[in-house]
Amino acid sequence: MAKITIGVDVGGTKIQTVAVVDSRVVGQARHPTPQTDAQGVMDEIVAAAREALGGAGGRAGDLRAIGIGTPGTVDAATGHVSNSSNVPGFMQEVPLGPTVSAAFNGVNVTVDNDVRVATMGEFRRGAGRPYRDLLGVFVGTGVGGGLILDGKLRRGRGSAGEIGHTVVRRGGRRCVCGMRGCLEAYAGRMSIEQVARRHAAAGTHTLLFKIMEAKGRDRVTSSVIADALDRGDELTQKLIGEAIDALGLAIANAQNLLDLEAVIVGGGLGDRLGQPFVQRIERATYPHLHVPDRPPAILPTELGDLSGAVGAAVVAGG
Amino acid sequence: MAKITIGVDVGGTKIQTVAVVDSRVVGQARHPTPQTDAQGVMDEIVAAAREALGGAGGRAGDLRAIGIGTPGTVDAATGHVSNSSNVPGFMQEVPLGPTVSAAFNGVNVTVDNDVRVATMGEFRRGAGRPYRDLLGVFVGTGVGGGLILDGKLRRGRGSAGEIGHTVVRRGGRRCVCGMRGCLEAYAGRMSIEQVARRHAAAGTHTLLFKIMEAKGRDRVTSSVIADALDRGDELTQKLIGEAIDALGLAIANAQNLLDLEAVIVGGGLGDRLGQPFVQRIERATYPHLHVPDRPPAILPTELGDLSGAVGAAVVAGG
Repeated sequence: MAKITIGVDVGGTKIQTVAVVDSRVVGQARHPTPQTDAQGVMDEIVAAAREALGGAGGRAGDLRAIGIGTPGTVDAATGHVSNSSNVPGFMQEVPLGPTVSAAFNGVNVTVDNDVRVATMGEFRRGAGRPYRDLLGVFVGTGVGGGLILDGKLRRGRGSAGEIGHTVVRRGGRRCVCGMRGCLEAYAGRMSIEQVARRHAAAGTHTLLFKIMEAKGRDRVTSSVIADALDRGDELTQKLIGEAIDALGLAIANAQNLLDLEAVIVGGGLGDRLGQPFVQRIERATYPHLHVPDRPPAILPTELGDLSGAVGAAVVAGG
Repeated sequence: MAKITIGVDVGGTKIQTVAVVDSRVVGQARHPTPQTDAQGVMDEIVAAAREALGGAGGRAGDLRAIGIGTPGTVDAATGHVSNSSNVPGFMQEVPLGPTVSAAFNGVNVTVDNDVRVATMGEFRRGAGRPYRDLLGVFVGTGVGGGLILDGKLRRGRGSAGEIGHTVVRRGGRRCVCGMRGCLEAYAGRMSIEQVARRHAAAGTHTLLFKIMEAKGRDRVTSSVIADALDRGDELTQKLIGEAIDALGLAIANAQNLLDLEAVIVGGGLGDRLGQPFVQRIERATYPHLHVPDRPPAILPTELGDLSGAVGAAVVAGG
């Protein structure tokens, strides 16, 4: 009997897959995302899914379903994705679900938004298990969010959960989305990098770009930021302090509106900076909580960078 | 057969009751809230309920249930209320439900928060009827909010919906709740009055207090504000402009998080300023909407100052 569910987390830099049996991860694979085109990315997704399946000792006949979390706009009915600027070729509409299904003899493929899927992963298999009402905040290149209310993923009309684009400062920093003052403009890794580059160009001393080069990177990755913090770099401390203040305000506002049980902080930067970062965010919510004696639990993820892939398997029923 | 449901909206200045049969309002009464003590207020609630019942041609035997919406913290199980600074005697715990029930031969009495009840009124019998996901924003002395998600009132752990205490400006105006920068500190009538008094004391020219005195009031009521706007008073225009900006930002943030279908703006000030006020709030959301091509409908109430009393009857099953 087919019993293995594959979960796939598609990102701009990596494709993470897991094989799940009886709610346990029994195989996994991680491939770099090809910087080519949509077909190249889909071929790599199939290869990474096969590797997880093989790692679980399974064959194609053991596969019951595949779940995929991807950035961009997802049409759940067709499994098509579009509007993703991070994944090569995914700006235009791409038949992701049908293509992956065809590669696995027509197996059921469920496609959903990457952040929602990661929220489901933490809700059902991670730090969110004790709760029925929670917000997932994923601090990475940008800032994504997912809401579980009364035990169910909140979709709204398709775009619920976008805490990264709630405004923390009217007329504030320009966000990549075009608005001003979004949480993402203060807490997203890409925005932090842009602001740091402007400061450095204006003569502010910082180790950030020296650390980046020493690591052989051309971007200020989460580990570059973590190292700069460890070495006491003042500019990085200032920018991360602003990120924490922005996260505290946005999370408190969500709390005042929704009275949640828990907030789970993950994403590339959130996972890398870990518990100390999460505790500082928690403290940054305090001045803005309307019911301060009953705050939400604010927790790091349990699944770390597997939140998305495990959540994708969950969404596919695995 | 008992078929009449009474709905009661308890406020700091008035007690509004309706009698509902087959979802229609068939009687109503409005009494000033006695500025005495809890017993005086409860006696007046009973009198206003009897008057609505009599207006509907009903006798005590025709009464199937009573619903009460009140400011403060409500224990739904016991029908007790506390922590209401607006209603005389309601700061301490008051056995509101049992007292009213005893006055009507033990009829079922449901007690809930006034703003939630008003949101339910608009959702089921007013401007919210076409929708399953909406936010009610009640701009009066303070700013209250109620959320209907997927057709159900969101309670959270008891304090969901507090859009009035989401922060629109970090470190901004001091709110009566003790926090800084809350929506209520910019859009609540009491806060607008306090800020106007400070401006006037500092020598800013304004007609606001002359209009107040000419109307024989000792507070800047909604109608005082409306008259000052009509007469082009600059200070009032400025303060209402700030209120609208704050409402636009807070509503847009709620929208970005929840992807609602509709936002209904009511309350004493909201109802008094009406459609032009609501349209300006709608425009003030635009710069902050993450999905600007699918905004929520932003609407005035349909039930006006009966939202609360009708909603109280709805909550009691009428």
